[in-house]
Amino acid sequence: MSTVAAAYAISAPDGSFEKVTIERRDLGPNDVLIDIKYVGICHSDIHTARNEWKGTSYPCVPGHEIAGLVAAVGSAVTKYQVGDRVGVGCMVGSCGVCAPCLADEEQYCERGTVWTYNNPTDPALQAGGYTMGGYSTAVVVTENFVVSIPEGIGLDVAAPLLCAGVTLYSPLRHWQAGPGKKVAIIGMGGLGHVGVKIAAAMGAEVTVLSQSLRKRDDGLRLGATHYYATGDRQTFKDLRGRFDLILNTVSADLPIDHYLKLLALDGTLVILGLPENPMAVTGRNLAAYRRSLAGSMIGGIAQTQEMLNFCAEHGIGAEIELISADEIDSAYDRVMASDVQYRFVIDTSTM
Amino acid sequence: MSTVAAAYAISAPDGSFEKVTIERRDLGPNDVLIDIKYVGICHSDIHTARNEWKGTSYPCVPGHEIAGLVAAVGSAVTKYQVGDRVGVGCMVGSCGVCAPCLADEEQYCERGTVWTYNNPTDPALQAGGYTMGGYSTAVVVTENFVVSIPEGIGLDVAAPLLCAGVTLYSPLRHWQAGPGKKVAIIGMGGLGHVGVKIAAAMGAEVTVLSQSLRKRDDGLRLGATHYYATGDRQTFKDLRGRFDLILNTVSADLPIDHYLKLLALDGTLVILGLPENPMAVTGRNLAAYRRSLAGSMIGGIAQTQEMLNFCAEHGIGAEIELISADEIDSAYDRVMASDVQYRFVIDTSTM
Repeated sequence: MSTVAAAYAISAPDGSFEKVTIERRDLGPNDVLIDIKYVGICHSDIHTARNEWKGTSYPCVPGHEIAGLVAAVGSAVTKYQVGDRVGVGCMVGSCGVCAPCLADEEQYCERGTVWTYNNPTDPALQAGGYTMGGYSTAVVVTENFVVSIPEGIGLDVAAPLLCAGVTLYSPLRHWQAGPGKKVAIIGMGGLGHVGVKIAAAMGAEVTVLSQSLRKRDDGLRLGATHYYATGDRQTFKDLRGRFDLILNTVSADLPIDHYLKLLALDGTLVILGLPENPMAVTGRNLAAYRRSLAGSMIGGIAQTQEMLNFCAEHGIGAEIELISADEIDSAYDRVMASDVQYRFVIDTSTM
Repeated sequence: MSTVAAAYAISAPDGSFEKVTIERRDLGPNDVLIDIKYVGICHSDIHTARNEWKGTSYPCVPGHEIAGLVAAVGSAVTKYQVGDRVGVGCMVGSCGVCAPCLADEEQYCERGTVWTYNNPTDPALQAGGYTMGGYSTAVVVTENFVVSIPEGIGLDVAAPLLCAGVTLYSPLRHWQAGPGKKVAIIGMGGLGHVGVKIAAAMGAEVTVLSQSLRKRDDGLRLGATHYYATGDRQTFKDLRGRFDLILNTVSADLPIDHYLKLLALDGTLVILGLPENPMAVTGRNLAAYRRSLAGSMIGGIAQTQEMLNFCAEHGIGAEIELISADEIDSAYDRVMASDVQYRFVIDTSTM
């Protein structure tokens, strides 16, 4: 039995979001029907809605920071029951048999991860032939791509953890942030502010590198020990050779060579936001202290669950501004103006 | 008592090498006087001799692939005796107390490694006020920067291991080359050919990526399992996502994005030659499989000794062309034309 859901869709790159009705697929044996309560607004939503990465199919329903309650389960579902608090992030499928999938790294599936929105799919799975995301009152997802949201976190502040949270948690774990490690987070936005909280909870010494000192008080309150303005050239002199790990959450083109010089011996700078243009990297800055420049994309499903458990244990949620569905367009404009503290979350009861 | 040594020096960027006499310092309590038997010609020698990296002091005596016999030891020397087979590589000093030095990574000394030639130094340590290298019949080096060359390796084929050998050995160990790992070596020259031998001896599956198939037979003989021409665009299609580790020994500007795509999940591409210009690196190519672009410089003294022991155990020496001292200029020209199999070594008995 298929489900009719309300959703907010955009119909052209320069269009506005409008309320529509979409059909979710019949519940298959391994599927979970989720009554969506909250959905975060990620910068990727804006890139896709406005066709900035090309290839957007319209009408487009973005949203991959989904939190809600289980409304129904397929006959073979074992992990979830009606009423469970659950989340869905950036992925709703993968091949399951390639080396990355077998290593619980479905985000690097060699045959192609199925992204939560704007991904080609069988029309039998989503009417229209491409996935539609969480700006909606309901979604159907196979249980292996559904995670459990522990009681300790509100569903509203949990929603952004499904993308922003795991995007920071995964590299912090992979490059072993913890006691004795000096971690810098470039950018104090939707991604960065969650990174500060998680890195501090892991026991690392956290420094925020932000354009200005405008959000300094927030940064220190969320767990940073140091906060520097990158608009001040002295910062790059003072911090030379300082960090074991730098996470770059900024998509804008940065002078990456300047940041590489802030790494200590064997330090790594990880690109999380994707800059539009290639970065100019001087070999000598890498060789000088055996430094690395790396990239990372979200995290696997098992790690997403681990991240939610960690956040619940440490009382970590995103800092959010709750909005109604008719405020999506203005929220997009405010994200572009860096005017959000720190993540917009849509209350789907307003749809 | 100071030592007068013969040496070959160049006096201007466009000059030729000529025989000169230089004075080596009095033997201090911790010093070792080495009777140099062989010295390799490294590409860095050419860059420095021709002032291509700027800052060359003239007359310049290059040479940091030094193999010889101990001729005298200072009163406090404990590691070496007269007659011992020894080597000196790229370094002759470091601060000894910074974090990298304490971690046996003197090549990353925070106060500045003292390089074997063209490095400012106390005129009491080297007349002229800068270090002079191994194109000479003798050198005085503090015992902590002298390594032992095991009996199993000829001094002539051991000389290039002091720079080329450890430059490859160190990243192969650091990024854990071994059984089950797929390693590619870009460039089949003085550095690359030693990398093939060492990586194969470590048990890795080795692939050479060279401009053409000209040296294919040699590559397979030295231990490579596969050999591909990078001049053939099909190579980049066939090898996509293949390697755990790629070592780039080529200093020329390469389209590094193309090579990054050859890395598997969590793979690393390490820059060993230093390209003249910044590399253009697309963030997406790093993020797609959590790939890393890194750099590495030679290895520490302890690791240099470990490398020599490993090479002796596995019967590894460099493939060399032995030349006399009056052939240095023509050897430089042949290196620039990639016409050497695979490292020139100067027989200092011809000085």
